Amino acid sequence: MNPYNAPLAEMRFLLEKVFDAPKTWSEMPAMAESVDIDTAAAILDEADKICRELIHPINRNGDEQGVRLEADTVITPDGYKEVYNQYAEGGWVGLCGDPELGGMGMPKMLGVLVDEMAYSACNAFTLYGSLTAGAALAIHAHGTEEIKQQYLPMLYSGEWSGAMDMTEPQAGSDLRNIRTKAVPNDNGSYNITGSKIFITGGDHDLTENVIHLVLAKLPNTSGISLFLVPKIKVNQDNSLGEANGVSVGSIEHKMGLKGSATCVMNFDEAEGYLIGKPNRGLVCMFTMMNYERLAIGIQGLGTSQAAYQMAADYAKERIQGVAAGGSPTCATTDPILVHGDVRRMLLTIRTLTEAGRALSVFTGQQLDLAKYAEDADVKAKAARYVGLLTPVSKAFLSDRGLDAAIMAQQVFGGHGYIRETGIEQLVRDTRIAQIYEGTNGIQAIDFLGRKVTGDNLTALRELVAEQVTNINSYSKVDDADKAKVLALLEQLLEVASGVNENKLKQPALINACAVDYLDAFGYTLYGCFWLAMADAAQDHEDPMFALQKAQLNRFYMDKLLAKAEYHLSQVNKGDLSIMQMDENLF
Amino acid sequence: MNPYNAPLAEMRFLLEKVFDAPKTWSEMPAMAESVDIDTAAAILDEADKICRELIHPINRNGDEQGVRLEADTVITPDGYKEVYNQYAEGGWVGLCGDPELGGMGMPKMLGVLVDEMAYSACNAFTLYGSLTAGAALAIHAHGTEEIKQQYLPMLYSGEWSGAMDMTEPQAGSDLRNIRTKAVPNDNGSYNITGSKIFITGGDHDLTENVIHLVLAKLPNTSGISLFLVPKIKVNQDNSLGEANGVSVGSIEHKMGLKGSATCVMNFDEAEGYLIGKPNRGLVCMFTMMNYERLAIGIQGLGTSQAAYQMAADYAKERIQGVAAGGSPTCATTDPILVHGDVRRMLLTIRTLTEAGRALSVFTGQQLDLAKYAEDADVKAKAARYVGLLTPVSKAFLSDRGLDAAIMAQQVFGGHGYIRETGIEQLVRDTRIAQIYEGTNGIQAIDFLGRKVTGDNLTALRELVAEQVTNINSYSKVDDADKAKVLALLEQLLEVASGVNENKLKQPALINACAVDYLDAFGYTLYGCFWLAMADAAQDHEDPMFALQKAQLNRFYMDKLLAKAEYHLSQVNKGDLSIMQMDENLF
Repeated sequence: MNPYNAPLAEMRFLLEKVFDAPKTWSEMPAMAESVDIDTAAAILDEADKICRELIHPINRNGDEQGVRLEADTVITPDGYKEVYNQYAEGGWVGLCGDPELGGMGMPKMLGVLVDEMAYSACNAFTLYGSLTAGAALAIHAHGTEEIKQQYLPMLYSGEWSGAMDMTEPQAGSDLRNIRTKAVPNDNGSYNITGSKIFITGGDHDLTENVIHLVLAKLPNTSGISLFLVPKIKVNQDNSLGEANGVSVGSIEHKMGLKGSATCVMNFDEAEGYLIGKPNRGLVCMFTMMNYERLAIGIQGLGTSQAAYQMAADYAKERIQGVAAGGSPTCATTDPILVHGDVRRMLLTIRTLTEAGRALSVFTGQQLDLAKYAEDADVKAKAARYVGLLTPVSKAFLSDRGLDAAIMAQQVFGGHGYIRETGIEQLVRDTRIAQIYEGTNGIQAIDFLGRKVTGDNLTALRELVAEQVTNINSYSKVDDADKAKVLALLEQLLEVASGVNENKLKQPALINACAVDYLDAFGYTLYGCFWLAMADAAQDHEDPMFALQKAQLNRFYMDKLLAKAEYHLSQVNKGDLSIMQMDENLF
Repeated sequence: MNPYNAPLAEMRFLLEKVFDAPKTWSEMPAMAESVDIDTAAAILDEADKICRELIHPINRNGDEQGVRLEADTVITPDGYKEVYNQYAEGGWVGLCGDPELGGMGMPKMLGVLVDEMAYSACNAFTLYGSLTAGAALAIHAHGTEEIKQQYLPMLYSGEWSGAMDMTEPQAGSDLRNIRTKAVPNDNGSYNITGSKIFITGGDHDLTENVIHLVLAKLPNTSGISLFLVPKIKVNQDNSLGEANGVSVGSIEHKMGLKGSATCVMNFDEAEGYLIGKPNRGLVCMFTMMNYERLAIGIQGLGTSQAAYQMAADYAKERIQGVAAGGSPTCATTDPILVHGDVRRMLLTIRTLTEAGRALSVFTGQQLDLAKYAEDADVKAKAARYVGLLTPVSKAFLSDRGLDAAIMAQQVFGGHGYIRETGIEQLVRDTRIAQIYEGTNGIQAIDFLGRKVTGDNLTALRELVAEQVTNINSYSKVDDADKAKVLALLEQLLEVASGVNENKLKQPALINACAVDYLDAFGYTLYGCFWLAMADAAQDHEDPMFALQKAQLNRFYMDKLLAKAEYHLSQVNKGDLSIMQMDENLF
């Protein structure tokens, strides 16, 4: 298997030329001193090195070996612990964490690129750090000063890890029905009792403590509250105390992601501490959840990039058949890259991956603006964008991640079905990204129901208006392409208006049409990003880079943009044919 | 896990009402005496019982246990051997075989339905019998009378099994480069030497002998010939003789299909017998290959049906959330079948599966006509249809099979990623169907290049004209839907004409656009079949059956038919954006 190499030129191009990170950073005092484009480039170089030399090499064996439960502790695959230690010591877990509490204070716009590399290198390994960073974010936003001081430095440093404990057997997408109880103690803590399932990183041997954020109900309430529950109790001086009634019931045997521990966690009067206000646990958990939703989209993006590299390398090496119309080198057999169908698959993966990276960086930029911008209006608008873009990033990036892995596997032919080539692992590993942290159906309903129609299209109109302005400013792309994307943006508004008008008299409309609407939005937004990239690339110092982006843009405009039209037409078809059939006829 | 239940009502409806099997059979002397609709229904009932009670129960364990290589023999998972014996003794391997040599002489139109059930019950197990039936077909078509008498009764009875040995490490899609040699002996036999990879059922413990059909080259030729090479030599009296220089090099570790042995087979001066003429081996092998291509399409179809059943059952049982607009039963939580997005997924799987079954039965009918029809014109036309439909059945059914399995897994949410629920196994098992027996890209190129434009659209025009006549005769479906499908049929011809006109000056056009053309054809043909089914169902004795088919047709017409338009538009966009990029820029 070839080593992983991060697409550093593409990453830097997006930061510098497409989304003007230097300007964004210079305008935010919290960022202006800590990061500039050269620092960012150095960090990306270092992340590339770590992903190539440390993380990617443990990927295949982790899949073969998997995690195992031994004497009540989950043991991770060979090499995970050593690599995790180095990863944590390098400060990568706390890359975007609060510098006053031990984080590195880097912008999310940069963090998403590092996350992408890590997921490209190994889906399963990267989750441990991602959940830790997400838990830290929620604690930072909603914890008391005491809790923050006690836990955040240890999470940012990677000495302890984080987990998100929500799902119970009877309460998955519908969290109203959780049964885990929290009983107050006299000292201000709570005793947590209940059982949680599907807990990623719920237990493992990478860190000495695991900090659980647990959803539970206070006595005599139907509301849900959030509690911090350490696996091992923490003394005032941060040394570890006694065990805390937290145990692993079992680990799941899964389709993939075998190096990631998915645990049934049992809490038996475990001591926990309230995070945020009583009965407001879902709001607090959503701080972590939204972080993880973007992260999981990036899991799909990282998979796409890894899949592209593997398939492109294979297509250049594998000799089979002759080019239609004769071999370009007059050989009797050619690399399969000469075949139109192989190119079609590679170009599909590549154009979706590069636009996906743009979506990821753009979302990261909005997160930074929402957190650090000085101007209240800028901040508020960015927060609306984050709301709009989070479900899209989660669903569209993870859906395209599976598509990419499957298409790359197809490029490998029969060899793609064999475990040792590693491409089938990508398919199995990334499949979960469409499911966990809220299924992609639920993301779409959140998007169309809450984020688009729920605020009467305000955020959507802003985003569309901004894209229209941007597109009109591009002078180095075809007018016909610009017109097509502009027309789709207009249609996105029209169709959403129609849904908004009809949603009360057709209560099933949003649920039934949300996935198509999200897909239409995704393919259109990728069209916006391709125009932006193709336009910006024409000034690139490397003429081949400019040519390549122009040709990739041509492919996207010719071959993929029209998917947006198909999906919009489906929303317009409404919910009748979906809802009318009697349940007994299914 | 719920038991598998064959969709018997749907199957009988297709045979009797949609494709008028009784008429087809009564007009063919070879069929008229052996089968009528009641016999067919009895056979389907029996097949359903065997699939439910014998084959499906070994599916999960076969995946967990897999095959293993022990002392040069492949050992299949527990239960495989006992079930295979009963399956073979029931005559199922030879269901469509020549009755003069021990087959049951049943029509393929019926055989495809039995195949579907078996693949629904267990993908991996069913391959052993499928390859045996395919090998028998090739021997029947191209073997000498002596070979036929010696081998076919043992293959039809399932006492021996068959394998297809084509691929070598350097020769996959491009078989010109095979290196396996065949040296003639004085007694008319040949010594075969070489190594083959990816040999499904190349060795196993289910039968006492394995009959390999091996592609090899005669001395001083570049042509390819076909040889029958038994694992163990066969004496004149059909008793087994000595070992024959055929050995298993290793078995592959795969993404799925773990109960199916995928072998590296080594031939070391193994005795073989020429099948067909020297240097005409590919033509002979294509008899088996075409059989397997349809079978592999049916693997995808069987997967779709199994996926639908599992997901529909789950959606009725799993309680989560409340219906948009309020619970229909005023419950606080509803089965997830109330949610539009879940229904959308189930209806997508179901409408594609039912139309896929129609494609499978229609292709089976054409195979029967091509083989048994009295009228030479009818026979020749059916043979053209078989040529046209085989790559479509293989690719479109297997592509939709993966889509179905993935969508069904999505319905299961987090539980779909866990091995014990079994739905993830379907995804892993069916993934290979898009790759083996010629990748789906190669099917599409065969379809558009050879079958459509290669004969100047003759067969396509015939098929379209027939569908136009059929559609115009339907009186119980919407005229608007008829018009949409008719327009698509017309566009299929127009677009293919365009490709045909440009294929010489744009040599990469077919390769680059074939997959989109095949998809456009598939979705349009499914539209034809849905109109046919909805029209025929209105006379059904069960009014709920009629209502259900009308509602499924409504869904297909509203939500899926437009995919044909998208794919046609892609063919019209041509190959420029696919071919222009320099290979170094990938």
